[in-house]
Amino acid sequence: MSESHLVLFANEAFYTAFAARDIAAMGEIWSERESLTCIHPGSPPLIGKKQVMRSWRAILANPQSPAIVCRTPKARVCGDVAYVLCWEQIELTFLIATNIFVHEGGRWRLIHHQAGVAPPPQDLPKALEVVVQ
Amino acid sequence: MSESHLVLFANEAFYTAFAARDIAAMGEIWSERESLTCIHPGSPPLIGKKQVMRSWRAILANPQSPAIVCRTPKARVCGDVAYVLCWEQIELTFLIATNIFVHEGGRWRLIHHQAGVAPPPQDLPKALEVVVQ
Repeated sequence: MSESHLVLFANEAFYTAFAARDIAAMGEIWSERESLTCIHPGSPPLIGKKQVMRSWRAILANPQSPAIVCRTPKARVCGDVAYVLCWEQIELTFLIATNIFVHEGGRWRLIHHQAGVAPPPQDLPKALEVVVQ
Repeated sequence: MSESHLVLFANEAFYTAFAARDIAAMGEIWSERESLTCIHPGSPPLIGKKQVMRSWRAILANPQSPAIVCRTPKARVCGDVAYVLCWEQIELTFLIATNIFVHEGGRWRLIHHQAGVAPPPQDLPKALEVVVQ
């Protein structure tokens, strides 16, 4: 399996944890580095694992949180750092995300996430969909 | 000068080119890699230098484009890859940006930019401001 595929696998694990509201899995996906950052749509950046995980606990604990589907992820690997661009479909709304991963302890872990409002993808090839839910 | 400072310098050069409407400088700031990506607020991702530079030519050629100021940039360096989070102030609107750089040909060059709407920064310490214009 190429590093790109492993990065896409880590990215899929992030959205699987998100969709499954699995806070333990979400904690495993994020790196242990001090400098983690996370920008939820329209919000200021959260810095450090404590702040970032607090936000995920609130999101995942909310039974009103809508389902999320990751669409057309594309990975780019630059040595021990990689990033994925993908759409996030939340009901009829689309966001676009930048997810940055580092190779840490033999696997790819998330160090930064930014999601912002975007138009729907023009083409949504079935073969590239990662339908999480 | 530390690598973090050099990354912040490259980030400042990006906003200086933006504010000065300097398309040649903007072209130098972006990497030569095929896989460049750029996400303007609310827009789909642009892929490859040709698409990315076409968008910048349109933005920089527009005399109605408002002034932009980069605020409170923070750099994180992971080997030959680095990323900067910063606010972009465009008149009274704030965006937040993720700018990813690679070390290429002895300097830091941009390979990815995503900007999205954000609330104003809560604290704007004068010492950290990079006022481009």
